[in-house]
Amino acid sequence: MPELRKDPVLGRWVIIATERARRPDQFSGAAQEGPAENPCPFCEGRESQTPPEIYAARSINTVPNSPGWELRVVPSVAPFLKIEGEIDRRGKGLYDMMNGIGAHEVVIETKQHIANMADLSDEQIEKVITAYISRITDLEKDIRFKYVLVFKNYGWTAGAGRVKHARSQLIATPVNLKRVKEELVGARKYYEYHERCVFCDLIKQEMESKDRLILEIDGFIAISPFAARFPFEIWIFPKKHSCDFTSLDLSMRINLAKIIKQVLSKLKKGLNDPPYNYIIHTAPFRRPEVGYWKSIDNDYHWHIEITPRLTRVAGFEWGTGFYINPLPPENAAQFLREVQV
Amino acid sequence: MPELRKDPVLGRWVIIATERARRPDQFSGAAQEGPAENPCPFCEGRESQTPPEIYAARSINTVPNSPGWELRVVPSVAPFLKIEGEIDRRGKGLYDMMNGIGAHEVVIETKQHIANMADLSDEQIEKVITAYISRITDLEKDIRFKYVLVFKNYGWTAGAGRVKHARSQLIATPVNLKRVKEELVGARKYYEYHERCVFCDLIKQEMESKDRLILEIDGFIAISPFAARFPFEIWIFPKKHSCDFTSLDLSMRINLAKIIKQVLSKLKKGLNDPPYNYIIHTAPFRRPEVGYWKSIDNDYHWHIEITPRLTRVAGFEWGTGFYINPLPPENAAQFLREVQV
Repeated sequence: MPELRKDPVLGRWVIIATERARRPDQFSGAAQEGPAENPCPFCEGRESQTPPEIYAARSINTVPNSPGWELRVVPSVAPFLKIEGEIDRRGKGLYDMMNGIGAHEVVIETKQHIANMADLSDEQIEKVITAYISRITDLEKDIRFKYVLVFKNYGWTAGAGRVKHARSQLIATPVNLKRVKEELVGARKYYEYHERCVFCDLIKQEMESKDRLILEIDGFIAISPFAARFPFEIWIFPKKHSCDFTSLDLSMRINLAKIIKQVLSKLKKGLNDPPYNYIIHTAPFRRPEVGYWKSIDNDYHWHIEITPRLTRVAGFEWGTGFYINPLPPENAAQFLREVQV
Repeated sequence: MPELRKDPVLGRWVIIATERARRPDQFSGAAQEGPAENPCPFCEGRESQTPPEIYAARSINTVPNSPGWELRVVPSVAPFLKIEGEIDRRGKGLYDMMNGIGAHEVVIETKQHIANMADLSDEQIEKVITAYISRITDLEKDIRFKYVLVFKNYGWTAGAGRVKHARSQLIATPVNLKRVKEELVGARKYYEYHERCVFCDLIKQEMESKDRLILEIDGFIAISPFAARFPFEIWIFPKKHSCDFTSLDLSMRINLAKIIKQVLSKLKKGLNDPPYNYIIHTAPFRRPEVGYWKSIDNDYHWHIEITPRLTRVAGFEWGTGFYINPLPPENAAQFLREVQV
């Protein structure tokens, strides 16, 4: 059973992944990218090579775990957290820990052997968004979980595996993530002072100044943030206030797919297909026990953060949360605005 | 002039390094390690290739910026922050910014062309520690600064440059770093509840259990922390309570040098000379205006955090502060205990 451990000073939870553990002598030097696994276990026709599907977008008259699908969600074969068991919070001296209970799922975004989400159609990306919403909504029913983290690692240096087939991941966690809490607390503080959503104000200011605006389409904008940590960091916001990613209706999902497709295509074309990560930032499950974000509906605003991996990140950036960005976001936005896709 | 910008939600400061800026089209793909600069500008006899020295450990009868030294501190040739100017805090709409005022210095740790601090002698490492203390103490006098960050990047993937000559860096900042604040606040909370230093309790528990103990020498211990983020993460603590790294006397500096030498040698020998970073975590300048850490003398405990770079870090770890460590720290500590150096 993996273990969740809490840093006694910072309150940061870490998964100590005993089941994925390597022996200490297997760590000498970072793993290098090797040859891709062949044949690809995520392509149509190889359904038997993944665990049974949890969700699929597939044609009527096809059966689960057989061909005829456009998108599948399957459990991870090497899950960070385990679905079965009790959380069992406990202490040992000054340390706090709990069992590594959670869910870890993989969204296979297409039946074709395509690596970059930028190369999927708007319709395919809309199916991915719909799958995220369906899975979050389902996992939310499990009272052991507090949050579902949705993210993508594209490219080796961004943490992707050797198989080059477009996919993203969901992790349901029994703890609230440090960064998510900090964002909620920061947004709350602004709301208490101004009685307005900080993200709504930010969107308004960015639409007026246009300095950091990359793209605007019906209902959404993409900007490079004012205090961007990384060159070409991009945030996508719904213009209309909403704390909850899962509340998107079909027409909004189609527009979100369009802006994601355009932004990722600009990155691919303008920057020579760089590695990137994205994370969906949405409200945690709004249960009564999480009292300190009870009015979250008004003060939080869901969004997507995309971070291309174009620079090495030095040690002090890890250890301090203090970043150095060698490219002003205004220059990044102008460059991306001009890339035609 | 570089600019310091604050994230309006998280309060995280970022340096937008306009002077080190590259053009947007120079970012396609992460920089690869190229051939080392030759001849090395940091070796004895090439003093003219660095800016004039700020501090040096050199023989009597030698003149600054000439041979005859053991260690030199020079300003960075490509500083993240500039020493001259006014801070000029200002706002623009909801955004906060200030001029990128600060100091950025390089500690050249040896006159010989040695890459890894593990290969320096105890005496040489003691000189490095003494240089850190001297420079922090000097920079503390500049009332524009709030903190001096001391860190080392060793190896390309840890953020080091192409020149393989042992050195570390100091950055004096006009803002308090997010992570430093969080540590102070976390330690304060524990102190308020228990009336004891959390780090002192942690040291006691680790010395009793010995599960995560790597090394113990007169006055210092090295452990792999309970909630380690990375395989072989190592923290070095003085056993005796002290919030202030700069208060070390000579005998303590010699012992600290010994434990650093042994720990880095174990990493080098046991893990095939891996890249690593270290950061010194010490109290910020204790000036009256920083009221929320006024009793810091009792509740904070300086230490060094060493993080080898043996795994890739996935995107969600960046974005969430939620880490997955594939090696239990107990296994890491046992492995390192057994490496003979």
